[in-house]
Amino acid sequence: MLKLIKESSHKRGLPPGTMVYIGAERREPVKITLLDYDEEHLEEREVQPEDCFVYKDKPSTTWINVTGIHDIDVISRLGKGFNLHPLMLEDIVNTAQRPKAEEYDDMLFIVVKRLYIKSGSTELGSEQISMVLMKNVVLTFQEREGDDFNPVRKRIDEGRRLFRKLGPDYLVYALLDAIVDNYFFIVEHFSEEIDKAEEELLDRPTLTTLKKIQDLKRALFLVRKTIWSMRDVIGDFMVGKMTMFKDPVLTYMRDVHDHLIQIIENLEVFREVLSSLLEIYLTNTSNKMNETIKVLTFIATLFIPLTFIVGLYGMNFKYMPELEWHYGYFAILGVMAVLTVLMIVYLKLKKWI
Amino acid sequence: MLKLIKESSHKRGLPPGTMVYIGAERREPVKITLLDYDEEHLEEREVQPEDCFVYKDKPSTTWINVTGIHDIDVISRLGKGFNLHPLMLEDIVNTAQRPKAEEYDDMLFIVVKRLYIKSGSTELGSEQISMVLMKNVVLTFQEREGDDFNPVRKRIDEGRRLFRKLGPDYLVYALLDAIVDNYFFIVEHFSEEIDKAEEELLDRPTLTTLKKIQDLKRALFLVRKTIWSMRDVIGDFMVGKMTMFKDPVLTYMRDVHDHLIQIIENLEVFREVLSSLLEIYLTNTSNKMNETIKVLTFIATLFIPLTFIVGLYGMNFKYMPELEWHYGYFAILGVMAVLTVLMIVYLKLKKWI
Amino acid sequence: MLKLIKESSHKRGLPPGTMVYIGAERREPVKITLLDYDEEHLEEREVQPEDCFVYKDKPSTTWINVTGIHDIDVISRLGKGFNLHPLMLEDIVNTAQRPKAEEYDDMLFIVVKRLYIKSGSTELGSEQISMVLMKNVVLTFQEREGDDFNPVRKRIDEGRRLFRKLGPDYLVYALLDAIVDNYFFIVEHFSEEIDKAEEELLDRPTLTTLKKIQDLKRALFLVRKTIWSMRDVIGDFMVGKMTMFKDPVLTYMRDVHDHLIQIIENLEVFREVLSSLLEIYLTNTSNKMNETIKVLTFIATLFIPLTFIVGLYGMNFKYMPELEWHYGYFAILGVMAVLTVLMIVYLKLKKWI
Amino acid sequence: MLKLIKESSHKRGLPPGTMVYIGAERREPVKITLLDYDEEHLEEREVQPEDCFVYKDKPSTTWINVTGIHDIDVISRLGKGFNLHPLMLEDIVNTAQRPKAEEYDDMLFIVVKRLYIKSGSTELGSEQISMVLMKNVVLTFQEREGDDFNPVRKRIDEGRRLFRKLGPDYLVYALLDAIVDNYFFIVEHFSEEIDKAEEELLDRPTLTTLKKIQDLKRALFLVRKTIWSMRDVIGDFMVGKMTMFKDPVLTYMRDVHDHLIQIIENLEVFREVLSSLLEIYLTNTSNKMNETIKVLTFIATLFIPLTFIVGLYGMNFKYMPELEWHYGYFAILGVMAVLTVLMIVYLKLKKWI
Amino acid sequence: MLKLIKESSHKRGLPPGTMVYIGAERREPVKITLLDYDEEHLEEREVQPEDCFVYKDKPSTTWINVTGIHDIDVISRLGKGFNLHPLMLEDIVNTAQRPKAEEYDDMLFIVVKRLYIKSGSTELGSEQISMVLMKNVVLTFQEREGDDFNPVRKRIDEGRRLFRKLGPDYLVYALLDAIVDNYFFIVEHFSEEIDKAEEELLDRPTLTTLKKIQDLKRALFLVRKTIWSMRDVIGDFMVGKMTMFKDPVLTYMRDVHDHLIQIIENLEVFREVLSSLLEIYLTNTSNKMNETIKVLTFIATLFIPLTFIVGLYGMNFKYMPELEWHYGYFAILGVMAVLTVLMIVYLKLKKWI
Repeated sequence: MLKLIKESSHKRGLPPGTMVYIGAERREPVKITLLDYDEEHLEEREVQPEDCFVYKDKPSTTWINVTGIHDIDVISRLGKGFNLHPLMLEDIVNTAQRPKAEEYDDMLFIVVKRLYIKSGSTELGSEQISMVLMKNVVLTFQEREGDDFNPVRKRIDEGRRLFRKLGPDYLVYALLDAIVDNYFFIVEHFSEEIDKAEEELLDRPTLTTLKKIQDLKRALFLVRKTIWSMRDVIGDFMVGKMTMFKDPVLTYMRDVHDHLIQIIENLEVFREVLSSLLEIYLTNTSNKMNETIKVLTFIATLFIPLTFIVGLYGMNFKYMPELEWHYGYFAILGVMAVLTVLMIVYLKLKKWI
Repeated sequence: MLKLIKESSHKRGLPPGTMVYIGAERREPVKITLLDYDEEHLEEREVQPEDCFVYKDKPSTTWINVTGIHDIDVISRLGKGFNLHPLMLEDIVNTAQRPKAEEYDDMLFIVVKRLYIKSGSTELGSEQISMVLMKNVVLTFQEREGDDFNPVRKRIDEGRRLFRKLGPDYLVYALLDAIVDNYFFIVEHFSEEIDKAEEELLDRPTLTTLKKIQDLKRALFLVRKTIWSMRDVIGDFMVGKMTMFKDPVLTYMRDVHDHLIQIIENLEVFREVLSSLLEIYLTNTSNKMNETIKVLTFIATLFIPLTFIVGLYGMNFKYMPELEWHYGYFAILGVMAVLTVLMIVYLKLKKWI
Repeated sequence: MLKLIKESSHKRGLPPGTMVYIGAERREPVKITLLDYDEEHLEEREVQPEDCFVYKDKPSTTWINVTGIHDIDVISRLGKGFNLHPLMLEDIVNTAQRPKAEEYDDMLFIVVKRLYIKSGSTELGSEQISMVLMKNVVLTFQEREGDDFNPVRKRIDEGRRLFRKLGPDYLVYALLDAIVDNYFFIVEHFSEEIDKAEEELLDRPTLTTLKKIQDLKRALFLVRKTIWSMRDVIGDFMVGKMTMFKDPVLTYMRDVHDHLIQIIENLEVFREVLSSLLEIYLTNTSNKMNETIKVLTFIATLFIPLTFIVGLYGMNFKYMPELEWHYGYFAILGVMAVLTVLMIVYLKLKKWI
Repeated sequence: MLKLIKESSHKRGLPPGTMVYIGAERREPVKITLLDYDEEHLEEREVQPEDCFVYKDKPSTTWINVTGIHDIDVISRLGKGFNLHPLMLEDIVNTAQRPKAEEYDDMLFIVVKRLYIKSGSTELGSEQISMVLMKNVVLTFQEREGDDFNPVRKRIDEGRRLFRKLGPDYLVYALLDAIVDNYFFIVEHFSEEIDKAEEELLDRPTLTTLKKIQDLKRALFLVRKTIWSMRDVIGDFMVGKMTMFKDPVLTYMRDVHDHLIQIIENLEVFREVLSSLLEIYLTNTSNKMNETIKVLTFIATLFIPLTFIVGLYGMNFKYMPELEWHYGYFAILGVMAVLTVLMIVYLKLKKWI
Repeated sequence: MLKLIKESSHKRGLPPGTMVYIGAERREPVKITLLDYDEEHLEEREVQPEDCFVYKDKPSTTWINVTGIHDIDVISRLGKGFNLHPLMLEDIVNTAQRPKAEEYDDMLFIVVKRLYIKSGSTELGSEQISMVLMKNVVLTFQEREGDDFNPVRKRIDEGRRLFRKLGPDYLVYALLDAIVDNYFFIVEHFSEEIDKAEEELLDRPTLTTLKKIQDLKRALFLVRKTIWSMRDVIGDFMVGKMTMFKDPVLTYMRDVHDHLIQIIENLEVFREVLSSLLEIYLTNTSNKMNETIKVLTFIATLFIPLTFIVGLYGMNFKYMPELEWHYGYFAILGVMAVLTVLMIVYLKLKKWI
């Protein structure tokens, strides 16, 4: 995720409003799907940018979803047709934005982040989804095909009167709700990874375990930043800062806000847990060193005096009376045995072994 | 408690307002108790959802308590009858909510958490209690039979004129007060567990002690989060954000707020204490290592030079005058004795032993 | 001080407004002193609750001081006579309150804490003092006889025109000022205890020193909490939240506020100092270990090679030419001497000894 | 960067408004470039201070850029001509300012900081750029020739109708945008240096690595301070505190604000990463010590008992039966071999080797 | 600086407004200097308190500077003459105040702190300077003769029309500016002391170095508190909380505020630097221990096995074939040499030496 930082600087020195796509290179054609609905009818088809403009003034709700933002030309044609501000277009294709909501005259521009786990790995990825809410139209832009919006599509398809009646602001709510719902996967992901790391830590901790815990901490840090920004955006909607949301939708928005706070609280718990895992790691290391040193001291304390004694009787002095005694050897063996026993008793009493 | 995180994601992809029960599986039938009272009369009985609806417009205060929220059907029948918002119903059965209060037109929806110690263990449990305050009716939903509300029932039963006169907002206050009162058990619980951990720490600290301290820290963290949210909810009542509470009740609400702040302050103290216990643990470990190394050094410093000396006279050189001396052996014993004494005196002076 | 936590839960399950005394058991009779004054006259005597009620509507200022709150009956008779709110009475006898100020219609209820050092020990104690400010009357309740209020009594006695003219709100100020003045004792107490701990730390640090430092830290934490709450209370007075204080008194209140901030700043300094003492303790420990290990290494580095050499010439090989040399023994002694000197020079150069 | 601190005190004791240049000594002549434009025409030339004053009341936008602020005389002639406040002039030449924006009657005075990497090193440098926004004129002052403003010059040159139409506040925005764009270089710089430090840390950590990590931390600290101040300045513009910015420019200003927040978030991530690098360093050190002690203990545990045994049979007692046995030597060799194997098996079982 | 804490409690139990001087004992007579000026004239002389009162209503600006506050009598005569509030007088002589500004009817009372380095030492001292700003008069009180105000006196003397025209609030600004200017000395002082400590740390760190770093940290903490309070005071002026400052002076006040923020930022940097120095100290200690243990392990690993071998051939078994070999001794020497080389190669490969 740190990669984005470098890429975001590519456009330095260009005038504001210059559109520069900064994501991975892509070649697929951009796909534009149009979904027009009201209580009575429902129309869904793939379109070209120019096909969309007539829907601007139709009273029905129109959702235009653009998949692929690497084709600057398509985006700018759309932008011209819908009269989007150049800065808005710049932000749509520059995927290094943070979640935010900005009002432009009669439009509301929302940038959010889709978080996902890269398939076949445990790494996290993040993709930018931009939305423009106009009077009758909702424009959404995503980097690549995703399945986040399928539940929304299904709910529109299933002809729920409620959904189709509530207009474009409810659609935006439904899309945000779908995106936030997917954050729970990330929460689960962390929960599992942390469990794994904890197990490893208690079982056979290595420096790799430490590395893993710190990678999790760092990933958590990045995810928390994103979700906090999301919360700020939705929070702004709730307190009525953005006038484009009407009252029934605000009630629903409160629900999304609640989910985000739930997620944030979970992430806070994870942070605490990771900190305590780090503490356990460090204490573990120091406990092990303690054990090692105890063994060393035990061995040395036991054998160094004995070695001295046997060295003593290895001296070659002419006159050493003990050496002449018949049972001198056995006497000294006895002395050493007694000494060893006393030593062990003493260490036992001191709770050392 | 971490378990809830995973469960809360089961309902992903469903439209808002979909009711999904996420708690442990239960089979007991849902029990609905109705308590209708005013200054003159008091009626208490078990009812079916449909029996309740007539009380909506009766001027007397009606408390409908639902025990068991796993039967979606019962809840939604009640919801329809009382015209509850779908999001409210969703939150009632999804027990992963945090404490909160939300106004819906002429209703106030409150979610709080009951905290308890699991019987036969020292683990903490948490249960969700939802309340809906309407003009004449208070609805409460709890996951399972609990004894929190018994004091309230008793106070109503005992025919206190005060209570019965004060209407449904006072009832909500009384219920909140009962729930908050029970938090003091949790405070006591922590107080005891921390005392135990401290004793263990000073007596015979092991890695298990560390684990226990960190588990307490983590539990404390979770409990603090819940109680802080509770305080925010009650705080909102106090500053008059929720218009359904009238003035005499607000004075009482201030009392609940005070209790919550008292509890929070106690928990803060516990956090400090746990931090200092961790510090003591670490210092203890390092002190012990110090002791061990001192012993090792003492033994080595005393015997390694002596061992060298006896080794010296164990050499087989042809011409070593000392070996020939008659009292050479005793002389060298004397030298070593003096050396040992000097060494010990020196270490004593240096405050090493 | 942690004891209070447990006691405060005794009253769980009782209706609000139930008076339960939770302090230590006492048997002394409750003493009520009445002091009625205006510019012209001054009357002071011991009274029964019922004697006080006539002063309610007299224009002179009346100070009724109740010493001992364990006799619920006396308190509730006073409460009834002065029309005190049940929650107020509950808080007066439940001494687990935090400092606070609450307005009840035409009364101001203030709870503050007296801090003192237990006689014959270095432990801190805390006692609750409650005040009720009415139009012409000030009620004060304290757990037991204390000398905090003597200066106030003296100032009234001494017939200072200023004091007697300024009415009941000035009396409350004077009492608060007297209580806050006594906090400086606590500051001094900490200052002295910290000095002692620092001395001990630099002289002969043991695990007890660490324990003492952490006890001080904990006590400081509790005191800071109390004084912060006091500051919030006085701060509320100053910004005019409580309408019962008139302007000349507010100027004086600012002075109390200033004192509290001075005290808080001193306590903050203490906290910093205690943290640095802990750091010094830990560094000390690790420095000592370093020293020990250096000695061990020095001894081992010096003697282990020498021991090897003497062991070498202790071998019993048939043919070892050196052993036959006449001055072999002295040669090897010389070699070892040189080796030792070189070793010491080397270690000196490396700044090891 | 710490150097500036000392220099900033040179002017102590002088009256406010005294201009004292505190940067490095310079001798180049001060260069003043004038750029006057509107939709119709564009004029660019080098000028003397006095040439500028006629532009004050011309409706076209005039940008006067002063390179070099060490010539107090030139600056004060400009100041007099444009009626700049003495404090403003003082701040322009005293380059120890932090980023700020101040309104003076009909002028807006902005101080910002250019950050750059010193050529041929990895050190960071900082330069002060002051701007004065008047009705028709923008004055900019920089310490020395830089290429930050070239893109702006180019955009004006290229005759973009948009730019030339938007007036002096848009010019100020464009200049700020150019400066902030260059901050991304700093972000990149940190990103690279941190990567290098991390590599070094994992490969061959030394005390130099620690020093480098801490230098980065300190540099990051200083940069964060500067950029936070910048954000505050731009934030003040956005919320409309400064009335000189009109609405279309405010929309663009929001873009600069966004960039600053992006940069700040990146720097926060860096801080986290650096902290975790420090943690890894410390754990590494302690792990290595653990390894060393393990080896020592292993060797000592294995050989100290063996050395005792061989010492035992090196004793010179007259009567030691084992010594007489024919295969005694081989027997004892066998015993020692078995002992060694058992020891190793034991240590293996204990997961020590 | 901690001394002040104890002294400030001397006045406990006295009524508010009681003047108690708490500084060091002094005997010099109090000196009162009067400086009266307007655009036309300038008069400067030493006076008695009573000489000052006539200036109260003269339209010219009068600055009365009192040096020495230990003579309660002089201060209270001045107080009576100028109608100062008793609390104001109390604060003037009680030098344990923190910087603050308080409005009393038509007066503004300001307490600030002069910081200085005690001559002939590196210790910091702090002195209280109180100012009273009235309609035409500025009263200043300082503990002892200082040179802070000399630049101000000089600026008035030099007959600058600007200064003399601007009235008493500008005088107060000029005095504050002079005091704040002197804080830069403290910044320099810290900068130098920290540089010295850093050098010592990298050169030859001892426990004294640690002590010095922590003393600096503590001093920094105290200074930061004072300067933060100063900033709050000046900040209050700037936002117009104190109505006695007119607009042109407010612009200048912003300059003082800026200086204070610059100083605070420098102090924050120092705090960071001191923290990193402490970290380096600790890492250093642990690195050194590592080195010591490595040496020990190296020596032990090399010689303990060799000592075992020579012990082996020192045994006195009757039948040990190797002992009989003619070149047995040389063979074993060879074996040991090879072993040593292998060992060293192995340790080299493992990057241990």
